[in-house]
Amino acid sequence: MALALRERGDEVRLTDRDPVSVRMATELGAGVPLEDGDGPADVAVIAVPPAAVAATLLDAQKRGLARVYTDVASVKSRPLREAAELGCDLTCYVAGHPLAGRERSGPAAARGDLFVGRPWALCPTPKTLPEAVEAVTALAEACGAQTVVVGAEEHDRAVALVSHGPHVAAAAVAARLEAAPEVALGLAGQGVRDVTRIAASDPSLWIGILSSNAEPVADVIDAVAADLAATAAALRAGAETDVTELLRRGGTGRRRLPGKHGDRAGTYAVVSVLIPDRPGELALLFQAAGVAGVNIEDVTIEHSPGRPVGVVELSVTPAAAQRLADELRARGWSVPG
Amino acid sequence: MALALRERGDEVRLTDRDPVSVRMATELGAGVPLEDGDGPADVAVIAVPPAAVAATLLDAQKRGLARVYTDVASVKSRPLREAAELGCDLTCYVAGHPLAGRERSGPAAARGDLFVGRPWALCPTPKTLPEAVEAVTALAEACGAQTVVVGAEEHDRAVALVSHGPHVAAAAVAARLEAAPEVALGLAGQGVRDVTRIAASDPSLWIGILSSNAEPVADVIDAVAADLAATAAALRAGAETDVTELLRRGGTGRRRLPGKHGDRAGTYAVVSVLIPDRPGELALLFQAAGVAGVNIEDVTIEHSPGRPVGVVELSVTPAAAQRLADELRARGWSVPG
Repeated sequence: MALALRERGDEVRLTDRDPVSVRMATELGAGVPLEDGDGPADVAVIAVPPAAVAATLLDAQKRGLARVYTDVASVKSRPLREAAELGCDLTCYVAGHPLAGRERSGPAAARGDLFVGRPWALCPTPKTLPEAVEAVTALAEACGAQTVVVGAEEHDRAVALVSHGPHVAAAAVAARLEAAPEVALGLAGQGVRDVTRIAASDPSLWIGILSSNAEPVADVIDAVAADLAATAAALRAGAETDVTELLRRGGTGRRRLPGKHGDRAGTYAVVSVLIPDRPGELALLFQAAGVAGVNIEDVTIEHSPGRPVGVVELSVTPAAAQRLADELRARGWSVPG
Repeated sequence: MALALRERGDEVRLTDRDPVSVRMATELGAGVPLEDGDGPADVAVIAVPPAAVAATLLDAQKRGLARVYTDVASVKSRPLREAAELGCDLTCYVAGHPLAGRERSGPAAARGDLFVGRPWALCPTPKTLPEAVEAVTALAEACGAQTVVVGAEEHDRAVALVSHGPHVAAAAVAARLEAAPEVALGLAGQGVRDVTRIAASDPSLWIGILSSNAEPVADVIDAVAADLAATAAALRAGAETDVTELLRRGGTGRRRLPGKHGDRAGTYAVVSVLIPDRPGELALLFQAAGVAGVNIEDVTIEHSPGRPVGVVELSVTPAAAQRLADELRARGWSVPG
C-alpha cells in the first residue's frame, strides 16, 4: 500500500514492532520511519492480526497519529466489537479489508500493484463520519482497488465462504500429502499444486484469522465435510448420479466467480484464430480487430516453440464476436467454429 | 502428443469418433487421418475414458492397428483387469498415464509442449514384453515427459491422493459458491480461484475417472472430510492448537510437492507495457514488435473496466527482450523497468 502511495508522490510514514522491517521498507522506497513529533496523518493504516486491531487502534488514537483510522484485517466483526468495548473513537475508524495477498509476507514480498483491480471491503457503522469513509475510500482507490461497502457480519460470512473456508480445505487436502509415498508426489500435476497453493501460508497468521471468524468458518467447512463424506459413500455404493451432482454443483459455483476484469468469467466471447508463428502476424491480427472497431479484452496464445501454426484466443464482448470473426475470415484468417 | 511427435517429424495418423475433431487436428498440423489399408503403426495411443480402454484396445488389436499399444487414462487397474477379461493381447500393451492436462479439451486446446517436464506413469505387468515398454518409453520421452514405472494399484492409490481426491475437494469447495450471496462473490480473491480452478472441468469426463478409482478416492476424501469436521469442532470449541496443527500439517504436505519442472514461464523474459484501453492499441504494439523482428510467445493483459490504462505483459525470448523494450520506448510506449 505504501509503495502504491509513494508511486503517486504521497507522503508515507512507517512504524512496526520490528525495526528491521521498517528499515527494509524504507530502503525499498515505501516511505520514511515515523518520528516522535510527526503531525497527525490524514489516514493511519493498522496492519496487525484481527485480535490485535482494537488495542492497536486505541493506542494510535491516544497518540493522535492520524485524523482517520482504518485496518486491513481479514475479519471485521471482532475488531469492531472490541474497539467499542475498549472505548475507541468509532467516528473516525473505518474497518477495512483489501482482498489481495500473497503466500509470502514482509517488505521484500511487497508489490505496489497488489491491489489493482481487487475488491476492498469497507465496513462503516452508523457512528462512522462520512468524511472518514471518504478518506479511506480515496486511499483504496489510490491503490487501484474497487471498494465494496458491506456490514461487518455479512463481510465475515462472505469471507468464510470465499477465503477462510477454502483456506482450511486447501490445508486438509495438503495434509494428506504429509505421509504420501514418494511415488505419489512424483505423479503430482498442476491441479493439486493449485488446490494446495494457499496451504503454504504462515499458520501463525492464519490461526488468528480463523479463530476470529470461528462460527462462519466452521459452518462452511462442516458443509464441505458433509459433501465429501456423502460423495465417498456414493463412490463406494456406485451411485454415479450423486457424484456427478457434486461435480455439477462445483462447476456451477466456480462459474459464479467474477472474471479477472471484475466481470463474470465467461462474460466475454472467445474467438479462436489459427496464426502462423512468426513476427508480425499478431500485429496483422490486431490491426484487423482495430479496423472492425473491436476492443480485445484478453488474449491467449497457444503454441509450441518451433511449430508453424499457433492458436490465438481473443476475448471480446459477445456483441462484437461475430463482427470480429467475419472481419478476420474476410481477410483470409482461419477462424474455426 | 501428436503435435509433439509431428514437431520431430514423426508420422502420425489420427482417428476419432468425431470427424470434425480429426479435421481440425489435421488442420492444426497434428497428423493426417487414418485410412483403411494403412499398415500397423509402431505405437497406437488410445485416448478414451477409463471404462472404454479395454474394449477400444481389443478392437484396435483385432484391426492390427499397431505393434505396441498404450493408453492415457487416469486410472490403471480397471483397464488392465478388463483387458485381461476381454482376452486382449497383454504382451504388447503398456498401460500409461501422462500427468498433464487442461480444463479444456478438443484439438483447439491442444499444445505440443503439454508434457514437457511432466511425469508419465507406465504400468507394465509381468506379461508385458520389454520391447513394448521401450517403445512407449520412447514415445513419452519424445514428448519431453519423465517416465515413472509403477504398479497399477500403487498408481491408482497415488493419483487418488494427488489428483482425484483434490479434484473432488475442489468441487466441494466450489459447490458452496452455488448459493453464495453476490457480495461474497464480489470479495473473492486469487486463493479461492486457485482452490476451485479444476472444478471447472467437464463432469462427464471426471465421473468416469472417479468411478473407475472409487475405493482409493473414497479413502482420501473420507480422510479430508474427517479433518475438516474435526477442525470445525475445534474452531467452535476455541481449541486453537488443533486448528494450528491442521494448518501445520497442510504446510508440511504442500512443501513435499516437487518443484514445477519444464515451466514455460521461466524460459521467457517478460516486457511490461502500459497501454490505453481502446481498439487499435494492441495492433500498434504488435506492429512495433514485428518491426523489431521479435516474436511474441505469450501475452497477458491486466486491466479493469473503466480504467483508462492497462498493463500488457509480453513474453519473448530473453535475447529479444532488450531489443523489444528499446523499440517500444523509441515509439513512445511507457515500458517500466
